[in-house]
Amino acid sequence: MKIVIIGGVAGGMSAATRLRRLMEDAEIIIFEKGPFVSFANCGLPYYVSGEIANRDSLLVQTPESLKARFQLDVRPLHEVVAIEPDKKTVTVKHNGVETSETYDRLILSPGAKPFVPPIVGLQTATNVHSLRNVPDLDKIMQQITTDTKQAVVIGAGFIGLEMAENLKKRGLAVTIVEKAPHVLPPLDEEMAAFIQNELNREGILVKTNDSAVEFKENGQKIVLESGEVISSDLTILSVGVQPETTLAKAAGLTLGLRGGIVVNEQYQTSVPDIYAVGDAIVVKQQITDTDALIALASPANRQGRQVADVIAGLNRSNRGSIGTAIVRVFEQTAASTGLSERVAKQADLPVAVVHVSGKDHAGYYPGATDILLKLIFNPETGEIYGAQGIGQKGVDKRIDILATAIKGGLTIFDLPELELTYAPPFGSAKDPVNMLGYAAMNLAEGLSESIQWYQLKEEIAEGKKLLDVRNESELAQGAFPNATHIPLNKLRDRLSELDPSQEWIVSCHSGLRSYVAERILKQHGFHVKNLDGAFALYRTVLPEELVYV
Amino acid sequence: MKIVIIGGVAGGMSAATRLRRLMEDAEIIIFEKGPFVSFANCGLPYYVSGEIANRDSLLVQTPESLKARFQLDVRPLHEVVAIEPDKKTVTVKHNGVETSETYDRLILSPGAKPFVPPIVGLQTATNVHSLRNVPDLDKIMQQITTDTKQAVVIGAGFIGLEMAENLKKRGLAVTIVEKAPHVLPPLDEEMAAFIQNELNREGILVKTNDSAVEFKENGQKIVLESGEVISSDLTILSVGVQPETTLAKAAGLTLGLRGGIVVNEQYQTSVPDIYAVGDAIVVKQQITDTDALIALASPANRQGRQVADVIAGLNRSNRGSIGTAIVRVFEQTAASTGLSERVAKQADLPVAVVHVSGKDHAGYYPGATDILLKLIFNPETGEIYGAQGIGQKGVDKRIDILATAIKGGLTIFDLPELELTYAPPFGSAKDPVNMLGYAAMNLAEGLSESIQWYQLKEEIAEGKKLLDVRNESELAQGAFPNATHIPLNKLRDRLSELDPSQEWIVSCHSGLRSYVAERILKQHGFHVKNLDGAFALYRTVLPEELVYV
Repeated sequence: MKIVIIGGVAGGMSAATRLRRLMEDAEIIIFEKGPFVSFANCGLPYYVSGEIANRDSLLVQTPESLKARFQLDVRPLHEVVAIEPDKKTVTVKHNGVETSETYDRLILSPGAKPFVPPIVGLQTATNVHSLRNVPDLDKIMQQITTDTKQAVVIGAGFIGLEMAENLKKRGLAVTIVEKAPHVLPPLDEEMAAFIQNELNREGILVKTNDSAVEFKENGQKIVLESGEVISSDLTILSVGVQPETTLAKAAGLTLGLRGGIVVNEQYQTSVPDIYAVGDAIVVKQQITDTDALIALASPANRQGRQVADVIAGLNRSNRGSIGTAIVRVFEQTAASTGLSERVAKQADLPVAVVHVSGKDHAGYYPGATDILLKLIFNPETGEIYGAQGIGQKGVDKRIDILATAIKGGLTIFDLPELELTYAPPFGSAKDPVNMLGYAAMNLAEGLSESIQWYQLKEEIAEGKKLLDVRNESELAQGAFPNATHIPLNKLRDRLSELDPSQEWIVSCHSGLRSYVAERILKQHGFHVKNLDGAFALYRTVLPEELVYV
Repeated sequence: MKIVIIGGVAGGMSAATRLRRLMEDAEIIIFEKGPFVSFANCGLPYYVSGEIANRDSLLVQTPESLKARFQLDVRPLHEVVAIEPDKKTVTVKHNGVETSETYDRLILSPGAKPFVPPIVGLQTATNVHSLRNVPDLDKIMQQITTDTKQAVVIGAGFIGLEMAENLKKRGLAVTIVEKAPHVLPPLDEEMAAFIQNELNREGILVKTNDSAVEFKENGQKIVLESGEVISSDLTILSVGVQPETTLAKAAGLTLGLRGGIVVNEQYQTSVPDIYAVGDAIVVKQQITDTDALIALASPANRQGRQVADVIAGLNRSNRGSIGTAIVRVFEQTAASTGLSERVAKQADLPVAVVHVSGKDHAGYYPGATDILLKLIFNPETGEIYGAQGIGQKGVDKRIDILATAIKGGLTIFDLPELELTYAPPFGSAKDPVNMLGYAAMNLAEGLSESIQWYQLKEEIAEGKKLLDVRNESELAQGAFPNATHIPLNKLRDRLSELDPSQEWIVSCHSGLRSYVAERILKQHGFHVKNLDGAFALYRTVLPEELVYV
């Protein structure tokens, strides 16, 4: 059998190597438009700062190594310019010459390309780059000279923030421009606020709710939607990706959501003997069972392997994706899996939310750092829709546990049951993930009621009163305006100071004491809700609403 | 309602605080035999080295703090010496005076006590200590003076190894004596071998297959079963724990496995209104559905909370435990969840095993370290029985993911589907856990066959031949005797050198190349199996079987 693969990175190369392990006699040709195959595209930003010092280490495999080990015919700088399904051939362009190649099975793994918005002056701007591959990286590196002082990153998604960090570490001043109201649009606003603070702490200027509308002076000046004009020696355009499906479209393959290639569970396109995998295909978002485009390395690699299995006759299906992502931003980490609160609500799901603060390992053991976890779930069934985490250490672990829980169909009622590794350097007897389950169960079972940070102002305006149960000494960090203040440990003694006919909202620093206070008050007949995430969360996302004395 | 709790650490204190949050009006009395409640028992070893520098940080709560916040009546140094179920009273001894206390509900959380073997001379030995609580720790610290040079740790379980590490870091010479054939008996031998190497690397003397039979000269000399006599200035006895159930037995409660307290799923003992939780109770091992004693902090805390829920009238059941544990040993970490290969076989389960080597994060990003994972599973159904991991970093994360998978009933076929956080500092596009799933599926689906390290010698003796596909340069690390050597990348060209009528076993360094070689050979009609874990594993567990040139 002769198998032709278009695209030699994650999905394509996974397919090729797996095919060889299953079909020793198959002829396997990989056409790659660019000069490199199997490169570490997720590592590219780290070469900018020098954190990854050796460019060769980004080139995981070469055509020669793949030939030697897997008998693969890897052809870089070969662009497939047309597919002829009727003849089962592809037309390939190399050094300006077009040739034809037959196939028995064709696998498309073209990936996603950076979305390039139609900004005025982009064509004549000489310092604006996207980052998709090694040639892009080389161009960016050439642009960075001793005269390059000011970088602008347009788009504050995962790659945008990685580029911002690495450009800063390279010594450049960095400004980020993001059209959404907050950085990291895939996360919810209050979680992203911690990352925005981290960027500010490192001296990066962040402009949200704004976007580039014009490049002037060959890109040296960027006019923003707000009217502001900023200078740039180097601009990174990172406002998202879109399926690279020009070829698929021309070949008559059925396209779906935002131009993505439609495939069935065996990765078959609408055209016989043509398969597709990776960032270019439409997948099922497993939680909502709706169409989605998920441009991530993990699903692409899995799909590449699975399509090889399918072609080799093994029983394999694409079960869909949930989408798990992580980014390190200087000393902080942000990660998410499944649906955000915003997306879950857009999908009209019955959404409840809880935030839990914890430590990456036992607080009594040196070096423990804070973790904030958010769980988005169905308060009736306990189904977990998604999770997000912020912290210096151990966020990857907690989001991986929760991603596994979602994939396994575990509910909030199962999270306390998880038996996770505990020794002082690694965790706690009650891991933050267990605590997330307990807190969610308290809501689901009606033991606790909560409001979110964005509801507080309105609830107060409607006449509810805020009780702050922090200690005196903590008020110096900032205080809620017009709050009643009784430290938790004095609450039982001073209950008579609170009006039981009043509706109350209770807060502390991180939410643990306020929950205890809520339980005390509820059992004494008060109408009371907990401010989920409490002061620590509120201070981060809405610092201007607090009073500093 | 008046609730009396016996035991004020993990289970007991979790029950007490949760009870207060659910039952504001209940009278809650906690009797603790020792001077401290709610102390960090898992942190005790780290105080020995000074890694935890402040003794107070081990004392998480005090009776005063628990009174102020939770209105709990915590009575340390109060030993309950008898339970009178008919009268619903307990007899309590404090300062030599016995008093009586009534209860409506009684919760036993007595924990487990160190097992003390009947070693000759133990009574007169003045330098032999167990480590269960803060007074034990204080005694050990008093024993460590400038004259204390040589420590002996008897028992190489989790706590024994933590003590060995911390005594070494304190500056003492340390010898470990372990009756089992290897350290960390809960792990399988080949995984534990990595930890034994780490101990040796740090200059700790490890004597396995040996035990103490007599203490002489007040404990200054220890006679071992092997006849050897070793000197000790300080001996830690850490050969396991047993349920602390003297009181329960005297009160007529039904006891089960090794004297553990029998409870139903609502933690009710055989006597009305008496409940029990924590290390002293018999639980269900969820994987085998058999009785087990699991002395770990995580289940104890969960059980404490759940028994409070039960008493408060909430619908809650003990679903059992799988047992997850971790230990840091100098620069290495060892962790396990579920059943070991040994235990799974003892339970007559249909067991398959696979080892996978990987990196804690992307190999092209600086600082990546090796991880070795082992999966124990049912090759027919794919059910996961257990997992173990060894490595410098990220072992906790992988075992937590696998513990979550086991709790959620995920099979080996689900592991490749897990979408785990991937950015270069955190993971890989194919995480070692995904790879574990792929490798297990290859076995389950018959694409690969393997033998274990302990089978190699016999298979060779029976006439099979070993093919080593490492590169020339790697042979300097050691070689299998009488192996045929063809580097993987030359294998297709040199196939004619191999006798196809012969049965082959193939190995490389870590198992990835040997699997590729196995697939090449299988597809060319050879009878071939993969040496699971390959050279790297074999070298660690059976170095004496290799040839060094």
